[in-house]
Amino acid sequence: MKAVGITQFGGPETLQPMALPQPEPREGQLLVKVHACAANPVDYKIRKGLLPMKFEFPLIVGYDVSGVVEAVGEGVADFVPGDAVYYSPELAFQGAYAEYHVVDAGIVTFKPDGLTHVEAASVPLCGMTAWQALFDRAGLRGGETVLVHGAAGGVGAMAIQLAAWSGCEVYATAGPENHDYLEDLGADVIIDYRSHDFVEAVRDATKGRGVDVVLDTVGGEVFARSFTALAPQGCVVAIAPEAMGGVSLEALAPAFFKNAEAHFHLMQRRRDTLDQLARLLERGFLDPVVESVLPLERAAEAHRRLETGHGRGKVVLEIVKG
Amino acid sequence: MKAVGITQFGGPETLQPMALPQPEPREGQLLVKVHACAANPVDYKIRKGLLPMKFEFPLIVGYDVSGVVEAVGEGVADFVPGDAVYYSPELAFQGAYAEYHVVDAGIVTFKPDGLTHVEAASVPLCGMTAWQALFDRAGLRGGETVLVHGAAGGVGAMAIQLAAWSGCEVYATAGPENHDYLEDLGADVIIDYRSHDFVEAVRDATKGRGVDVVLDTVGGEVFARSFTALAPQGCVVAIAPEAMGGVSLEALAPAFFKNAEAHFHLMQRRRDTLDQLARLLERGFLDPVVESVLPLERAAEAHRRLETGHGRGKVVLEIVKG
Repeated sequence: MKAVGITQFGGPETLQPMALPQPEPREGQLLVKVHACAANPVDYKIRKGLLPMKFEFPLIVGYDVSGVVEAVGEGVADFVPGDAVYYSPELAFQGAYAEYHVVDAGIVTFKPDGLTHVEAASVPLCGMTAWQALFDRAGLRGGETVLVHGAAGGVGAMAIQLAAWSGCEVYATAGPENHDYLEDLGADVIIDYRSHDFVEAVRDATKGRGVDVVLDTVGGEVFARSFTALAPQGCVVAIAPEAMGGVSLEALAPAFFKNAEAHFHLMQRRRDTLDQLARLLERGFLDPVVESVLPLERAAEAHRRLETGHGRGKVVLEIVKG
Repeated sequence: MKAVGITQFGGPETLQPMALPQPEPREGQLLVKVHACAANPVDYKIRKGLLPMKFEFPLIVGYDVSGVVEAVGEGVADFVPGDAVYYSPELAFQGAYAEYHVVDAGIVTFKPDGLTHVEAASVPLCGMTAWQALFDRAGLRGGETVLVHGAAGGVGAMAIQLAAWSGCEVYATAGPENHDYLEDLGADVIIDYRSHDFVEAVRDATKGRGVDVVLDTVGGEVFARSFTALAPQGCVVAIAPEAMGGVSLEALAPAFFKNAEAHFHLMQRRRDTLDQLARLLERGFLDPVVESVLPLERAAEAHRRLETGHGRGKVVLEIVKG
């Protein structure tokens, strides 16, 4: 099968077309014909060798799939060949910059109706991260206030839409070039973090109360200062383990005086989260946010865009023309 | 009335006997004849001027009271003169190294039956801290495993008993001189933190799984490393805001890979928590832990013991001989 992979860690140019044997599904697995695969920051972090895991070469990255079941392994009862599915592959196995991908059926679900494969592939990783952070971890409920840091990123775009859908008041930090974009996604109050201190801006906008929940996609000092922007008993959910440097734990002292909590979240690949996202996507309460579509061979270009740009939404590799 | 107070911040010798006007209860308040008042680390921290609050002199400390209602202010329906009560005074008002103390009725409840005033005074501050940290914040449930750091301290002694009562497996860190003491309180596994790394000891004792909950009374590096001792989805509750220095936020990266949560807890003065503690004390499921009893005039000695010693249980000032 055609794939794009790497034989060593390095820059975008290490992503090379290659012909690899088509994988075979074992017990409990699906063989999926990949129609589209979105690129994510984790893709280039793995490509650079930044993740503390052991990988084997040739290595294929790509952790956001929409496609069609080609074959099923023994014991698979939920899917048959021809089913359209979407999911996020586990980092521990091969990714999906390829024509075919093998995946455990347990983390897969049916592609939302009415979405193209390109649109569906843009959702799983960021959508599950945002849903789990806001609802499973922070326990966000309608009527609460939530601040999303780094709101113009992939997780931010899902988080703003989900928080708005749930009935919350949504604050977002972003550069001024993204303010219209975030307003369209449903943000109520947009804070230009370059010209305004977000703690003061939140204090002003909430009449001194602070927000109930902060979703921190940035880390470090932004994480620590977020506790000062919280209402009493508030909650900060952080999702960026690699970005916590540069600040002393002492900066967390204000968290005590708020009786605050912190949740450190790594996205869990769960069918129930994907099913819930699919329901919202099908009913129009959540929109996929695709910035650009590239063919598989241009994966290196997708990485360059992710690494250099302040993109709005996902870059998706289209493998089967839809 | 007789009291022991300070007219400036400083060492234990600043604690001086003084005659002050007997306070009067306003609307919603009680005048309490103080029978016993326990000393806590917060007493000497305030005496030294270490707390970021504004205090007026002469200042009386003391935040653990058992006594008898002497008079009630307007609008108090729950108490009448003669009621025996126990509570933890708010730090923002005068403490209770004194013959009389005025307190908002809302944070007071009836003294547990069968306890002396000295015993009852030893419970509120540490008992409420431990209860709220374990159950209200960490959501501890029977069958879970919990690690208590600094277990020989006042909060630790309550936490070990409460965790054991709830049906949990209780791990505790303490110096070797306190191991018998902690075993008597109900600890199942005691870790000598001086000769053993607690993360390794927990890993060995839990067959690699880690504990569900850590109660951290120590802070700093102990707080940060506690995430490595957690089971997946585990929870660390920290109660020492002043002790978080010396470590970078980067040390929290392992918390993400556990999908862990951190709760930063400042004890809340709540009648329902005191009532629950009273029920357990009356039924013998929780024991007060009194190390020594001193008369009010020897408050300075009580502070010296707290500041220098590794005491086992509370030092209580007895104001009315029981």
